[in-house]
Amino acid sequence: MAKVDYPSEVKSLIGHLKRLPGIGARSAERMAIWLLLEPEPFAGDLAASLRGMKERVAPCGTCGFFSTVADGCPVCDDPRRETDTLCVVEQATDVIPIERSGAYHGQYHVLGGRLSPLDGIGPEELRVSPLRERVRAGSFGEIILALSADVEGEATANFISDMFSSDSGELHLTRLAQGLPAGGGLEHADSLTVSRALSNRR
Amino acid sequence: MAKVDYPSEVKSLIGHLKRLPGIGARSAERMAIWLLLEPEPFAGDLAASLRGMKERVAPCGTCGFFSTVADGCPVCDDPRRETDTLCVVEQATDVIPIERSGAYHGQYHVLGGRLSPLDGIGPEELRVSPLRERVRAGSFGEIILALSADVEGEATANFISDMFSSDSGELHLTRLAQGLPAGGGLEHADSLTVSRALSNRR
Repeated sequence: MAKVDYPSEVKSLIGHLKRLPGIGARSAERMAIWLLLEPEPFAGDLAASLRGMKERVAPCGTCGFFSTVADGCPVCDDPRRETDTLCVVEQATDVIPIERSGAYHGQYHVLGGRLSPLDGIGPEELRVSPLRERVRAGSFGEIILALSADVEGEATANFISDMFSSDSGELHLTRLAQGLPAGGGLEHADSLTVSRALSNRR
Repeated sequence: MAKVDYPSEVKSLIGHLKRLPGIGARSAERMAIWLLLEPEPFAGDLAASLRGMKERVAPCGTCGFFSTVADGCPVCDDPRRETDTLCVVEQATDVIPIERSGAYHGQYHVLGGRLSPLDGIGPEELRVSPLRERVRAGSFGEIILALSADVEGEATANFISDMFSSDSGELHLTRLAQGLPAGGGLEHADSLTVSRALSNRR
């Protein structure tokens, strides 16, 4: 007598869901059973939404943010955005908090990660060469390195700074300020943050 | 100037993923972006797997476990399983750990939940009437109430016991034993478990 188990269709879906980031075997099983029991059209809509996104959305060849077949790139194709500043970020998702801040209206360049020799991520694995080409061909007056405030982010920022050191006459390279987060009191700040808030005081 | 945000296709997928159990806004965004950047055929396979499961798998009309269009129900349609015992469980997923134990070879009946008056779940919301019909029409000698060892599970077990009290001559109603989990020492057991292990000693 064969032991009863989930049908192969359910096991196949669990196998796919397990590959999603942050989803373990238990969560994948729970999601698959929930999807099985949830009345349509939800699962059909989810599958169609996934397929539609994959068909119509792709990284912009210039900035690396998400462009669509129908509307192009919301950054590069917007003629109202400033064209003399370029903000370099690690991930396409980093564009969203910067845009929500309302404090920046220029162009973007997504690196696709940061330098991490231990993980085998060097300049060739990132969109560093396209950045150099873009800056040499363009007319940017300032490049803002909006990278993480940790060791790897600093190393990546230093690498890019060095790359443009010979252009430094006409090109300003800046980095995001480090200090206390807005609304954050001293009692909750770690000592490195306090140290940087002190040394960067103005 | 419009603030840059995710394309509507990405936001639509995030909205769908957020409805999955245990998935919050942050996880949904992370999953959607991962799916966007993951090279095909993964997302297409996932969508096809989801659609295939919804098309081909459905609860068995008799036991409530998962049956497929192609193979029928792995419990009810297996002629080698014993037909004189019926194991009542809360959820279809509860069948899996019982099968993995290898200690049971009879039939199943999935209630679809347990009595919970505060959540508006009474006998009408569960597969209680089909259970009564099935037991009256069948030739079961034993019904095992494999329900949760908590207040609502006990209440559900009591309700079903009362329902079959007039049949008690030819029908044995049993419940899962409560006690120490296998491999579990006394030092890690909560006091209710120890209390039940003591009063159910043999």
